Amino acid sequence: MSNKYSGIGASNGIALAKVYILKEEPIVINDSPVKDIDSEINIINESIVKAKKDLFDLKNIALEKLGEEKAAIFEAHASILEDPEMANEFVSLIKEKNCSASKSISQVAEKYIALFKGMEDAYFQERAADIKDVTERLLRYVLNLPVLDLATISEEVIIVAEDLTPSQTAQLNPLFVKGFACNVGGRTSHAAIMARSLEIPAVLGLKNILTNVKLNDLIAINGSNGEVEVNPKDKKVWEDLANKFKQEQEELKKMKEQPTITKDGYDKFILEANIGSPKDVASVLDNGGEGIGLFRSEFLYMDNDHFPTEEEQFQAYKEVVEKMNGKLVVIRTLDIGGDKKLSYFKFPEEMNPFLGYRAIRFTLDRKDIFKDQIRALLRASAYGHIGIMFPMIATVDEFLAAKNFTLDCKKELEKEGHKVGSDLEIGMMVEIPAAAVNAENFAKYADFFSIGTNDLIQYTMAADRMSENVSYLYQPFNPSILKLLKMTIDGGHKHNRWVGMCGEMAGEPDAIPLLMGLGLDAYSMSATSILKARSIMSKLTLNETQSLAKKALECENTSQVLELVNQLMQNK
Amino acid sequence: MSNKYSGIGASNGIALAKVYILKEEPIVINDSPVKDIDSEINIINESIVKAKKDLFDLKNIALEKLGEEKAAIFEAHASILEDPEMANEFVSLIKEKNCSASKSISQVAEKYIALFKGMEDAYFQERAADIKDVTERLLRYVLNLPVLDLATISEEVIIVAEDLTPSQTAQLNPLFVKGFACNVGGRTSHAAIMARSLEIPAVLGLKNILTNVKLNDLIAINGSNGEVEVNPKDKKVWEDLANKFKQEQEELKKMKEQPTITKDGYDKFILEANIGSPKDVASVLDNGGEGIGLFRSEFLYMDNDHFPTEEEQFQAYKEVVEKMNGKLVVIRTLDIGGDKKLSYFKFPEEMNPFLGYRAIRFTLDRKDIFKDQIRALLRASAYGHIGIMFPMIATVDEFLAAKNFTLDCKKELEKEGHKVGSDLEIGMMVEIPAAAVNAENFAKYADFFSIGTNDLIQYTMAADRMSENVSYLYQPFNPSILKLLKMTIDGGHKHNRWVGMCGEMAGEPDAIPLLMGLGLDAYSMSATSILKARSIMSKLTLNETQSLAKKALECENTSQVLELVNQLMQNK
Repeated sequence: MSNKYSGIGASNGIALAKVYILKEEPIVINDSPVKDIDSEINIINESIVKAKKDLFDLKNIALEKLGEEKAAIFEAHASILEDPEMANEFVSLIKEKNCSASKSISQVAEKYIALFKGMEDAYFQERAADIKDVTERLLRYVLNLPVLDLATISEEVIIVAEDLTPSQTAQLNPLFVKGFACNVGGRTSHAAIMARSLEIPAVLGLKNILTNVKLNDLIAINGSNGEVEVNPKDKKVWEDLANKFKQEQEELKKMKEQPTITKDGYDKFILEANIGSPKDVASVLDNGGEGIGLFRSEFLYMDNDHFPTEEEQFQAYKEVVEKMNGKLVVIRTLDIGGDKKLSYFKFPEEMNPFLGYRAIRFTLDRKDIFKDQIRALLRASAYGHIGIMFPMIATVDEFLAAKNFTLDCKKELEKEGHKVGSDLEIGMMVEIPAAAVNAENFAKYADFFSIGTNDLIQYTMAADRMSENVSYLYQPFNPSILKLLKMTIDGGHKHNRWVGMCGEMAGEPDAIPLLMGLGLDAYSMSATSILKARSIMSKLTLNETQSLAKKALECENTSQVLELVNQLMQNK
Repeated sequence: MSNKYSGIGASNGIALAKVYILKEEPIVINDSPVKDIDSEINIINESIVKAKKDLFDLKNIALEKLGEEKAAIFEAHASILEDPEMANEFVSLIKEKNCSASKSISQVAEKYIALFKGMEDAYFQERAADIKDVTERLLRYVLNLPVLDLATISEEVIIVAEDLTPSQTAQLNPLFVKGFACNVGGRTSHAAIMARSLEIPAVLGLKNILTNVKLNDLIAINGSNGEVEVNPKDKKVWEDLANKFKQEQEELKKMKEQPTITKDGYDKFILEANIGSPKDVASVLDNGGEGIGLFRSEFLYMDNDHFPTEEEQFQAYKEVVEKMNGKLVVIRTLDIGGDKKLSYFKFPEEMNPFLGYRAIRFTLDRKDIFKDQIRALLRASAYGHIGIMFPMIATVDEFLAAKNFTLDCKKELEKEGHKVGSDLEIGMMVEIPAAAVNAENFAKYADFFSIGTNDLIQYTMAADRMSENVSYLYQPFNPSILKLLKMTIDGGHKHNRWVGMCGEMAGEPDAIPLLMGLGLDAYSMSATSILKARSIMSKLTLNETQSLAKKALECENTSQVLELVNQLMQNK
C-alpha cells in the first residue's frame, strides 16, 4: 500500500531506501521516595562510569568512520558527565529529598535543559540537546534499558524515528544512512542541522510517520519540499528526482571556487557566515565564505560559570580572526538578557523581556563587564580585520556612548603598549525599527550596519515570533519590512557605509533577489547556504533585481511580493 | 528653616498654606491561623455593615459640598462591598484556611488589585485604587483603627501624605484644601487625576516629604514644575507665581467658547477627548471638546463577569453618541490581551504579552465575540456620527479582514431591518511600526488613522515603557518617532484621509507645535488638556510650526528636538 505524507523539508535532497525503525523503550522515572540512599548513589556512580566508557568507544568509532567533528560530540558528552557539579546535584537530591536515582537525574537535567532551551541561538539549542541526550543515556543505564547502537547499520536505510538525538546522529554513517523522517522537529532542530552537515535529506515534523511504517517497507523522502511516500507507487519518479537533485548539487559545488558575481558582472556583493563559536570557522572556509558577518560572543558567557576575563575572550577572538586570515570578522558584543540568561548573574524579572533590559542596554549600564569584552576585541583586532558590532541600538546617543567608550579603551590599551588593528571598524546592528527609520543619522557615526531581521521583523510587526498565536505576523516579505530595509541601506550608503544583513532572511533563496535589488552589500548566513546564494546571484542581473525591488516596495502585502519573486525566479 | 524639594508636577498651579499632615496608623494583618471561625466571620460582617453606613454618610457630605461626581465614588465603593462574591471569598478563606478576618480581606483584595493594576488604561488603574481604598477602610474597622475624616477640614491647608486614596480625595473641599504634596505617585496616579479634576495643584513622588514637615509648618508647592519649599524664605516670590498662574487660568477659561484656530487663521485642527466610559462625556463637553477621538470599549468587558451582549454594548455606545449630539465619536474595538485580562476568559500565557495575542489578533480569531461588538457599534451609528477603529493593525490583510467582516455585519443588520448611520467611518489605530511605515497602502482602505503613540513608541524603540530599566528609551520626541508620524500623516493625506492621534503625546504642550507642523488633523487627549491645547494653537502660525517640524526631522536625537521646540515657544 502506498501512502503519502507531508512534513517540513529540513535538509535538501531525495532518497529512496528501506525503513529503519528507531523506536526506543520509554523511560519511566521512579517518583517514589527511596530509603536506601547509598544504593541509589551507587547506581548513579556506576552508570556514569559505564556511560563514560561507552561514549569513549563511540568516540573512537566516530573518529574512524565519520571524522573528527562528529567524534567531538561524544567527547563533549563525556565532559558533561565529568562535571562534578552536576554529579553533586544528583547526589544531594538523593540525600536531601530521598529522590530515586532516576528522579534526581531527570530533575537536574530538566533544570539545565530549561536554562538553555529558552535561548534563541542554534548554539544553545544544541547545548540543551546535548544535555538531554547524555542524561537520557544515563537514565537508560540506571533503569537497565537497552541503548540502540546506530553505528552497526550496514545496509542502505532511511531512519524513521520520533526524533534523533545528537549522539544518535553522530553514529550515522552516510554510506548507509540515506536520510531521516521524524515525527517532530523543524528546520532549526538538531536533527535538521545534522542532516545538512551530513548532506543527507531529512523530512521532519511528520507527526505520525513512526506509526505508519513497518519492517521491510520502502520509503521515499524529498527533503526539499517535505514530501514523503511509503512504498511508492512509481519508483521511477523518485529516481528521476534524485538524479536531478544530484546534478544540481554538483553544479553548486563548483561554486566554491567561483567569485561572487552577478550575471552582468557586478562583483561587490559579499557572502559571509554567522558563527557561534571558534569551532564553526572550518565550515565557513569549506563553503567558500568570504568573511564572518556575525560572530555571536554569547557562547563565551553562557557556556561558563563566571563572566569571561579579558584574556579568555582575547584568546577566543584571536583564534577566529587568525583562522580567517585577513578576512573581515564582525563580532557582536554581548547580547544577553531578554530570553538569554546567565547562571551566575541575575537579570531583573520583566513582563516583556524582548522589550527589556538586554544587549547594549545592559552593557552600557554595566561598563565594568563591558570593558573586559571591548579590550579583548581591540587587542584581537591586531591579528586580523575585526568589526565590533553593538546589538540593540535604538538611539544615536546609545551608539555614541558605546563608540566613545570603545575609543577610550583603545587609548588606554595603546598607552599600555598594546597594538590595535588599524583597519578596525565600529558598527551596529539595525534590529530596532527606530534605528532603521533614522539610519541616515546613525550612518554619520557607524562604520557599518548589519540588519538583524529576526528582531527587526518582530518589533516592526509587534509580534513575538516565538508565540504560536501570532507567528503568522512574522513576515520577512511584508512591504513594511522591505521599506525599512530600504531606509537602512539608503541611509548607510548616503554616508558611504557598507550595509549587511545577518538575520535568517539573508540566506533565504527567495529573499536574495530582493536584497540585491535593494542594494544590500554583505549577506551573512549559515555557512551551508553560501554556495546556493552564490549560484542565485550568478543567475541574476543587477537591473532585474532592481526593478523587482522597486515593484515589491509598491506592493500592499506579503503574498504580492512573493508572487513577484516567483515570477522572476521561475525560469532561472 | 527653609527646605526645597523636587517631585513630579502632577496638577498645575501654585499654592502656599499650612501643612495638614495626613498620617494613618499602619495596618498590621494577623497572619496566624484562627480557631474561632464564627467570630472572625462576625467581625467581617459587622465591619461591612459599618463601612457601608459610613460610605453612605460620606456620600451625602460629598453630594452637598463637592457635587454629584465625587459622591458617585462613595456609591461605587459601597457597591463593591455589596458584591456577594467578594464577601463569599472572605468567608471561604476563613472557613477553609483558618485565615483571620484581616488576612482574608487582604488576600482577596490583593487578588483583585493585581488583576486591575497590570492594566494600562487610567480607568482600570482607578478600579484598582477603588478596591484598595474600600478594603483598607474595611481592614481599619476590622482591626479597630481610626479612619481620618478629611471632610472636617475647615481652614486653608496643603495636605502632606504618603498617598491619597479615592475616598480621601473625594472628601476634600477645594475651598479649604489648596493642594497636595505626596511621597509617592506620578502624573497618572489617582491623586494626580483627582487634583486635576479639583483644579488644585499637586506635587507627587516627593519620596520623603512626609518626614520633613511638622505641625504648623508653612508649605509652598508648584504643581507645574514639581518644586516644593517648606517654610519658604521669600513668600512674595510664591505669591507672585500664584498670581501669574491665576491670570493664565482665566485666559484659558475664555478658550472654552473660542474656536480652534491658529494665529494665522487655519481652523481645520480638531481637539477631541479620550474617554473610558459614558460617564466621562460630561467633562468632555465642559472642556470644549469637539469630539471623542478614542472611546475605549474595554470597560464594558473588564468591569463585567461575562462578554457583554450586543444589546448591553449597543446601549452604552448609543448613550455616548447621543450625548455628543452629532459630534464624531471614535470607538476602538476590544483591545484585550497583552496586559489586560478578563476574569471570565483565559488568555494563553505568553513570554512577551505586549508582542502577543491581543486586540485585533484576538477578535479576528474569535469572530463570535467580535460580532456582538461590531453589530452593537453599527446599530449605535444610527444615533450620531461614529467611527469604528480597529486596534493593533499590522498588515493590510488584517485591516481588510476586519473591515469586510464589518461590512458583512452591516448587510446582515440592514436585512434584519436595522438602521446603520450613513456617515459611519471605518478606520484604524496606527500603533505598530509596520502600519506607520506602510501607511500609504492602508490609506487606500481605511477612512481614517489614529496614531496610538504609547504603543508606537514602545515598539519602535523596542522598550517596554512599564519596565523601569528601559523607560529612558520611551522618547516621544526622538527623530525616529517624528519620522514615523510624518509617514503616517503623509500616507493618510495622500488618499485624503484625516489623521488623528489618541496617545498621550497629543496633549503634551511641547508636542503640539510639532504635530501641527507635521499636519496632524485631530488631537485627542484628556478632556482637561483641551483648553491649554487650544491656547497653544492660537499662538502659533502654521508656517512657523511647519519650519519647526522640518528642522526637527533633521535632528539626531531627542534633546536637539526639544531645544528647537523650546526656542520657538519661549516667547509665546
